[in-house]
Amino acid sequence: MEVLIKENERIDDLELNNLKIIQNRECFCFGIDSVLLSDFARNIKKNSKVIDLGTGSAIIPILLSAKTEVAQIVGVEIQKDIAEMAQRSIILNDLQNKIKIINCNIKELDKNMENYDAVVTNPPYMKKDTGLKNENISKLISRHEYECTIEDVARISFKILKDKGEIYMVHRPERLTDIFSAFKKYRLEIKNIRFVYSNKKSQAVLVLIKAIKNAKPFLKVDKPLYIYNEEGKYTQEILEIYNKKYDV
Amino acid sequence: MEVLIKENERIDDLELNNLKIIQNRECFCFGIDSVLLSDFARNIKKNSKVIDLGTGSAIIPILLSAKTEVAQIVGVEIQKDIAEMAQRSIILNDLQNKIKIINCNIKELDKNMENYDAVVTNPPYMKKDTGLKNENISKLISRHEYECTIEDVARISFKILKDKGEIYMVHRPERLTDIFSAFKKYRLEIKNIRFVYSNKKSQAVLVLIKAIKNAKPFLKVDKPLYIYNEEGKYTQEILEIYNKKYDV
Repeated sequence: MEVLIKENERIDDLELNNLKIIQNRECFCFGIDSVLLSDFARNIKKNSKVIDLGTGSAIIPILLSAKTEVAQIVGVEIQKDIAEMAQRSIILNDLQNKIKIINCNIKELDKNMENYDAVVTNPPYMKKDTGLKNENISKLISRHEYECTIEDVARISFKILKDKGEIYMVHRPERLTDIFSAFKKYRLEIKNIRFVYSNKKSQAVLVLIKAIKNAKPFLKVDKPLYIYNEEGKYTQEILEIYNKKYDV
Repeated sequence: MEVLIKENERIDDLELNNLKIIQNRECFCFGIDSVLLSDFARNIKKNSKVIDLGTGSAIIPILLSAKTEVAQIVGVEIQKDIAEMAQRSIILNDLQNKIKIINCNIKELDKNMENYDAVVTNPPYMKKDTGLKNENISKLISRHEYECTIEDVARISFKILKDKGEIYMVHRPERLTDIFSAFKKYRLEIKNIRFVYSNKKSQAVLVLIKAIKNAKPFLKVDKPLYIYNEEGKYTQEILEIYNKKYDV
């Protein structure tokens, strides 16, 4: 299939079911966090309707299309150019029947939208006024809470999820206090947490969270996920997450 | 030194600086959680004034007397018989100048009490109406939130800690939502969390938490602590926590 590639864009092979993705060098490119989140969410039930809040290049919907048997995935992206690029990746992979890209602010999602079975989200990690900001506006919106905070994600997820619907989020451990606070406020009961460590001696670098709307409290902290082994190479688990072929 | 040992009591050697502890077989006996908490809190500053909320047999004050150079440790225990037994352990170890046992409900701590530099606490883990309860009243109070909840601990800690004072707590991971909620309510900012796993394949079984009163938010999740290695024996780190001799 012939799909337009614009200036500064490139096509990467996801090495999974022959899937590919278009990315722009000048914008935020997907990282291991999206890959880990997609794998963490791989048990989303068959035929579910899923929404990705802040989908970017649509990396999470594309990976989920291979790792799950969900019915439909909606990717919401506030930045017009990126939403349009994501749409071209959907066409490139011939996934138009499964993945729909919407270009809007998540705060403006139609109130009459159908109730979703699951939300997935890799939101901006950094507070509005923290960290390095000498970057372009596109990366700023992807990385900092200018347009979307943890509380926004929680509030909107509560609104669009069905009762007992699930939310899967990847974030930074240093924001856990804000995450627990916002999820409690919007009755998203955190049920599973998995911390990701660079190696056995490091502090956690990422946290994967599964919560269920209106569920009873009981939280499990899963075994740690290490990215690198003692030789500085990917661990077996990471290799399996990246390379495992799924039969769908 | 001659110290009275009552019926059902025994003296255990802590294998640390020749310290010993009196415990009652019929009551809650200390476990690995108190040992790990004492080690987690080993960097409490020299000359600090420390209080242990719910001290039980005084295991934490006794271990801290060896692992730190704090000036004074107050152990608060609601159960009269246990407080009295703890006092005999203090005498047995000749620690009367460093450790003081108070027999009262932590909710009745004198409002004019001096501000503390640090709180340590291993509170009851289980909600009031959960879990097995076919046990005697003494164990019930030690294990279930009949007399002391997470919120009580947070509220009282805020009251008795000086500004930027520290709290060190051990608890069960499944209660994290309640812990984050109560600590936020009482401005105890969680700064460090370390999860304890039985082994590399298990979920977390304990969580060690350090918070600072009125501190700025930024949370670090330390590397995991494993109790058992792949052969089912204590890991090197656990052996070091149990056996390391401290020069004080």
